[in-house]
Amino acid sequence: MIPRYSRPDMVAIWSPETKFRIWYEIEAHACDAQAALGVIPKANAEAVWKARDVEFDVARIDEIEAVTKHDVIAFLTHLAEIIGNDEARFVHQGMTSSDVLDTCFNVQLVRAADILIEDVKGLLAALKRRALEHKDTNRIGRSHGIHAEPTTMGLTFARFYAEMDRNLNRLKKARMEIATGAISGAVGTFANIDPAVEEHVCAKLGLEIEPISTQVIPRDRHAAFFAALGVVASSIENIATEIRHMQRTEVLEAEEFFSKGQKGSSAMPHKRNPVLTENLTGLARLVRMTVVPAMENVALWHERDISHSSVERNIGPDATITLDFALARLTTVIDKLVIYPDNMIANMNKFRGLVMSQRVLLALTQAGVSREDAYRLVQRNAMKVWEEGKDFKTELLGDADVCAALSAEEIEEKFDIGYHTKHVDTIFSRVFKD
Amino acid sequence: MIPRYSRPDMVAIWSPETKFRIWYEIEAHACDAQAALGVIPKANAEAVWKARDVEFDVARIDEIEAVTKHDVIAFLTHLAEIIGNDEARFVHQGMTSSDVLDTCFNVQLVRAADILIEDVKGLLAALKRRALEHKDTNRIGRSHGIHAEPTTMGLTFARFYAEMDRNLNRLKKARMEIATGAISGAVGTFANIDPAVEEHVCAKLGLEIEPISTQVIPRDRHAAFFAALGVVASSIENIATEIRHMQRTEVLEAEEFFSKGQKGSSAMPHKRNPVLTENLTGLARLVRMTVVPAMENVALWHERDISHSSVERNIGPDATITLDFALARLTTVIDKLVIYPDNMIANMNKFRGLVMSQRVLLALTQAGVSREDAYRLVQRNAMKVWEEGKDFKTELLGDADVCAALSAEEIEEKFDIGYHTKHVDTIFSRVFKD
Amino acid sequence: MIPRYSRPDMVAIWSPETKFRIWYEIEAHACDAQAALGVIPKANAEAVWKARDVEFDVARIDEIEAVTKHDVIAFLTHLAEIIGNDEARFVHQGMTSSDVLDTCFNVQLVRAADILIEDVKGLLAALKRRALEHKDTNRIGRSHGIHAEPTTMGLTFARFYAEMDRNLNRLKKARMEIATGAISGAVGTFANIDPAVEEHVCAKLGLEIEPISTQVIPRDRHAAFFAALGVVASSIENIATEIRHMQRTEVLEAEEFFSKGQKGSSAMPHKRNPVLTENLTGLARLVRMTVVPAMENVALWHERDISHSSVERNIGPDATITLDFALARLTTVIDKLVIYPDNMIANMNKFRGLVMSQRVLLALTQAGVSREDAYRLVQRNAMKVWEEGKDFKTELLGDADVCAALSAEEIEEKFDIGYHTKHVDTIFSRVFKD
Amino acid sequence: MIPRYSRPDMVAIWSPETKFRIWYEIEAHACDAQAALGVIPKANAEAVWKARDVEFDVARIDEIEAVTKHDVIAFLTHLAEIIGNDEARFVHQGMTSSDVLDTCFNVQLVRAADILIEDVKGLLAALKRRALEHKDTNRIGRSHGIHAEPTTMGLTFARFYAEMDRNLNRLKKARMEIATGAISGAVGTFANIDPAVEEHVCAKLGLEIEPISTQVIPRDRHAAFFAALGVVASSIENIATEIRHMQRTEVLEAEEFFSKGQKGSSAMPHKRNPVLTENLTGLARLVRMTVVPAMENVALWHERDISHSSVERNIGPDATITLDFALARLTTVIDKLVIYPDNMIANMNKFRGLVMSQRVLLALTQAGVSREDAYRLVQRNAMKVWEEGKDFKTELLGDADVCAALSAEEIEEKFDIGYHTKHVDTIFSRVFKD
Repeated sequence: MIPRYSRPDMVAIWSPETKFRIWYEIEAHACDAQAALGVIPKANAEAVWKARDVEFDVARIDEIEAVTKHDVIAFLTHLAEIIGNDEARFVHQGMTSSDVLDTCFNVQLVRAADILIEDVKGLLAALKRRALEHKDTNRIGRSHGIHAEPTTMGLTFARFYAEMDRNLNRLKKARMEIATGAISGAVGTFANIDPAVEEHVCAKLGLEIEPISTQVIPRDRHAAFFAALGVVASSIENIATEIRHMQRTEVLEAEEFFSKGQKGSSAMPHKRNPVLTENLTGLARLVRMTVVPAMENVALWHERDISHSSVERNIGPDATITLDFALARLTTVIDKLVIYPDNMIANMNKFRGLVMSQRVLLALTQAGVSREDAYRLVQRNAMKVWEEGKDFKTELLGDADVCAALSAEEIEEKFDIGYHTKHVDTIFSRVFKD
Repeated sequence: MIPRYSRPDMVAIWSPETKFRIWYEIEAHACDAQAALGVIPKANAEAVWKARDVEFDVARIDEIEAVTKHDVIAFLTHLAEIIGNDEARFVHQGMTSSDVLDTCFNVQLVRAADILIEDVKGLLAALKRRALEHKDTNRIGRSHGIHAEPTTMGLTFARFYAEMDRNLNRLKKARMEIATGAISGAVGTFANIDPAVEEHVCAKLGLEIEPISTQVIPRDRHAAFFAALGVVASSIENIATEIRHMQRTEVLEAEEFFSKGQKGSSAMPHKRNPVLTENLTGLARLVRMTVVPAMENVALWHERDISHSSVERNIGPDATITLDFALARLTTVIDKLVIYPDNMIANMNKFRGLVMSQRVLLALTQAGVSREDAYRLVQRNAMKVWEEGKDFKTELLGDADVCAALSAEEIEEKFDIGYHTKHVDTIFSRVFKD
Repeated sequence: MIPRYSRPDMVAIWSPETKFRIWYEIEAHACDAQAALGVIPKANAEAVWKARDVEFDVARIDEIEAVTKHDVIAFLTHLAEIIGNDEARFVHQGMTSSDVLDTCFNVQLVRAADILIEDVKGLLAALKRRALEHKDTNRIGRSHGIHAEPTTMGLTFARFYAEMDRNLNRLKKARMEIATGAISGAVGTFANIDPAVEEHVCAKLGLEIEPISTQVIPRDRHAAFFAALGVVASSIENIATEIRHMQRTEVLEAEEFFSKGQKGSSAMPHKRNPVLTENLTGLARLVRMTVVPAMENVALWHERDISHSSVERNIGPDATITLDFALARLTTVIDKLVIYPDNMIANMNKFRGLVMSQRVLLALTQAGVSREDAYRLVQRNAMKVWEEGKDFKTELLGDADVCAALSAEEIEEKFDIGYHTKHVDTIFSRVFKD
Repeated sequence: MIPRYSRPDMVAIWSPETKFRIWYEIEAHACDAQAALGVIPKANAEAVWKARDVEFDVARIDEIEAVTKHDVIAFLTHLAEIIGNDEARFVHQGMTSSDVLDTCFNVQLVRAADILIEDVKGLLAALKRRALEHKDTNRIGRSHGIHAEPTTMGLTFARFYAEMDRNLNRLKKARMEIATGAISGAVGTFANIDPAVEEHVCAKLGLEIEPISTQVIPRDRHAAFFAALGVVASSIENIATEIRHMQRTEVLEAEEFFSKGQKGSSAMPHKRNPVLTENLTGLARLVRMTVVPAMENVALWHERDISHSSVERNIGPDATITLDFALARLTTVIDKLVIYPDNMIANMNKFRGLVMSQRVLLALTQAGVSREDAYRLVQRNAMKVWEEGKDFKTELLGDADVCAALSAEEIEEKFDIGYHTKHVDTIFSRVFKD
């Protein structure tokens, strides 16, 4: 994570302040549960809440950790400084550090997921608005980068909407994957702490209990979480790639918004580069690269080893911050994307009707010409357009074999663009269900 | 995929015979729908079903493809050879090759997912049986590879069960991700074919319609599918790693089944190597490596490019065949795993009571000793066990400071293993809900 | 690996026949060395060479392996069937299976590397030929997909040449990485076999001795090998991407060769899709995906575990066969690539001189205008070209502020394309050194 | 990158201060070259060096960038503030931002490589010292985690030395991969700047000229660089895994250094967890994950797109800082690793001689027993050791069939550990050449 590609709300989730606040809540709720069970005095549990509105002193905790070389002990020591050594003596009783660390990490991931889910919702709104706006904006569809048949810009936005809607669903499931907490002790047997404590803390934090843990929460959950982020990132790359193609000089069907005052290249003032979507392409790679290490983290030794920890200290913040930034940036790009319908028409007409060849082929077949013959007829006229710059319709109208099968009206009709867009409403009704 | 690591049912899904059979069904159902719409004659649609029980001649199709350099055309030509050129003339009308290829690929993935789902169910049954069998088999829990606190072998199996149960859920969701079909034409606009055809074909094949496609079915679906396989593979590695650790000479708490006649190493006859779980570790890497290219496949150019195709021709079969084989192999390993409870006890006692130090620490704290002092008391006795081979309980009973806080009975009680397993039933009831 | 993307010479390296032939050579050379040391009788060593011209019966070896469940023993048993049990009794003496397997794997990788090195040389020849052919073919250079300044097609080919030349170097180094053999016994101590045997066998097979092995040859070597293949594959993707861009309808500066008889899409006969380079893009992903598992293979447990084996059985053949095929396919694409110089000129002129704005900016600065002012002057004229379709040079000649700084001749000179290509020879002389 | 896993020298390379300092040097040297060519006045070139000892004001540059949205322009503006607008007017003339950015990035990578190279040298020294120290410390070698044959701890260190020595070589080559600079203008044609400028700047910065660039330096170089780091990281994981195994409770052949004052777990004071090597395992994953995005960065569009930039802003610092930290940490671990030779002997004797079975097998064969019979003889005695706890040598001496082939002295001799270590000096002389 670097500041350039981050937004404050997501960054805040990963701050030491937030982390210690979550640790505190876990410990305080655990004390309540322990007191309710009669394991520790109620007064001590209550005393912990004295720190409810205190801001923890990160520098002080770091200072203690430099001596103890143990982050949770450092925090607990600092907490005791605030609420009193005597009052603090039952804090963390029966718990192991991972009870706090793992539950906290999942709280952070849940919050991160909540932001990402809102991000995608914002993106969906932008995509839907642009889809409806350009529902009937004609545009050539391309396969292999080559003109195929007409489509509309609205369909392009609509398919990105559908893809991101699936991603919304994936993020919701991913959130559920890691929305668990565990307070189960050194090897997950609850030897020193009653399962009721876990239940209470999880309920308070909005988590499910982890049915079976082993000091740590099982890492297949996190692997699934980061894999979901990797899919979302790949979809961002997909949309970004489309826009980069649309903006390239020879196509110029769209441009990223370019503020009047903004300088492009230092040397080529006329250039309007799709730098935001190029950047999104790179950010997608950054998010995606976290998937494999998250999967490598699953196979911990026996009840746990700590190899996953350094990985997660990095990819936890990095993947979520980068994806949040990327989703927000993409939303802005979509929102402000400048569309050039005239250029779309000009591009579509570049090969003088050739894009309609599929229809002509079909019409010939339906008129009784064999598939092979129809193919040959279309091909020979198409080649004249391609190689000699002729107009496809004119050539067809002048081809005796074609005219033997199709009337002039029938040929004319094959070049009606409305033919290609007649099901746009149907598709929209499938995609935008409400 | 190599034969050594494959099973016939999964391999069959990816055979040319199966592929052509699915292609045939798509084409035949599409003809029915076209006939119902009045687009093609009913007689022609019916004629296609003449090939219902014919086995397609793969060699012949290959022969035609060598000339036409187009696989779908080759197949259609062969189909016409079977049902007659005249009868076949409306087959594939209005469709594009990808309508057939993509829908077929998803049918194959769905079938593969069905096998994988059954595989996991089989594995779950084995894990549950072994979990119940060893629910109370005492064993030391280990963090960082170091003895921590007692647990039971049943809990180990139970946590693998819980993890694989999550994977079952992930596979079901992954199956839904790719259980769609599309018959929407060259750029997905249904220009030449009514959406009703897609609906009919999908219903017949047990697929959902793809709400919006673009010649191809969007590849975020496949990325999510392969990502799920990657998570399952990582869980396999997790279980395999545990068994490899258990079988290592110094631990020897379990062994893969070893038939009497089987030769181990050519040179060291006494060696019983955990080669199956080592192999599973490698197979997990093979499945996992398909996740990133599946994600790289998402960003196709415009309405489609064909870069994904060569990737999927490989990872489609490879990932599913390898995972199927791995799940089956793991099921056998679990089913027949030889457990050595006596060695588990011997290992647990290796450090003469040290594993109970956590309880003693807690007891001292509860008896009013400050956390720091308690820590120091436990540590100084523990070090004697560690460095001088003393017995922990004996040392504690001889430590005046400890005895000032805890009675002999209290100290004795801390070494009761039942203390650690008292919540096993609770955990089992969380994991095995029915 | 699938037949569609493979070539016979590379496939042959990975056949069982080749593998057994290499095993045989290792065993036979080892016998010679053992005989020279006086460890085994000379007659027995000589007897092994009776099988020199025998083709091993793969089916028979498989049959024996089905019983013994050990591939090397199966092979040795078959060898004994050929040369006689008595003659064969000293074969493999003092050796462990991995001595044979690992040394054989490296021989295969070396041979694969030799083919890949020749492949790259062939590609280099094609690139050089096309570079010289199009050294002076003017073309617009593009950054961000947007027109920047003129360059030449020859420079494009030349930079791919330079990149592939670096890859040639990388492949040579990668070959050295794995050109070692080891015959060092069960844990690499040469307990049962003299180091002289290893030396003799390696010398005969053209390998270096592995300075220190541990039953297996260390896998950092193989990780480095596959990483090099991944880089080469990424360069293939780089070239493929350029061609795909050049062929897209709106650019059309080049096309993959398209034979007259070849059918493109089944429905759109006019389409000439860059399917070969799209395919190469996918193949690059397949090669690249083998890098991470090869790296995960490095950390074997203690002196060895066998987790790497299943990975290598797959990625060994797959990565080399796919890369060989891809390099050969790319060579053909480059060799036959149809270049359209006229379209290059037409594209360059699309924005009526705007691509020269960098030169004008510089000229203004050199004429004493401040950077900021020069930037503003260029920008205001550029915008008229962009938004109103004006001609850049005309606008500049009509801009009083510009003309105050630059004479008409000076302005005219800024639009001379020769200015941009004056160093092409210098660059060529750097790239093509001989 | 997070502070916890970083060291100051490597961090400093990636600071804004360092970056601007390098930019400055590039610009200043370029001015010198331009002046030498007569393109700009000598006085202006000299004036630039006025800032030689000035510390650039990062906050001020950020402030300017917030307005101009262009980092190089912001820097140049700030430079002008220091040396005077008039003096600065020829700075950057004819150059494009990437000339500065890419050359700077490579300077940073070269410096990072230099640190990594020194790191590896430090690690090699530690490994060599420990190898010599434990050259003759007997230890059981293990394959598949199972006892195989004796080896020595020195051989373990020696093989890590050999592996890291290869990595040293790889890092040196990786350094050469990215030790190039380019000052070639907007599309690499040197249209606005003489190649002599590039030559001068590169010579001053200790770089080779990039033979052919395209605004950017080709990214196959960087892919190869990061791939090399990935291999080094995998070797770190390899060593870390060995130590983790050695420290596990049941093995206990080594321990990471544990300072008296250091607290381990908060709850289990006796535990000495191999947290450093577990941490290294995780750090290796972090470095390795950068390889694929670096490879994905190779295929830039046409002469350049900027998708690589966000990736490199992250992985440039992250991979080098993490690897530097990991190498340093590993060096400390190796340096201070506590070795337990007694435990090594105890472990080796765990199965009462079984590890010598390979020798016995060989001796029987050499004494004329058929391979199959020898195997059976060894196996039946081995099973008694395994299953009934007998002593292997005793059993052999009591087996009539064995004694028919081997004398008692011969059997005794097979259990001499010196037999296994007789070639240690040879291996050491291969590994440590000076």
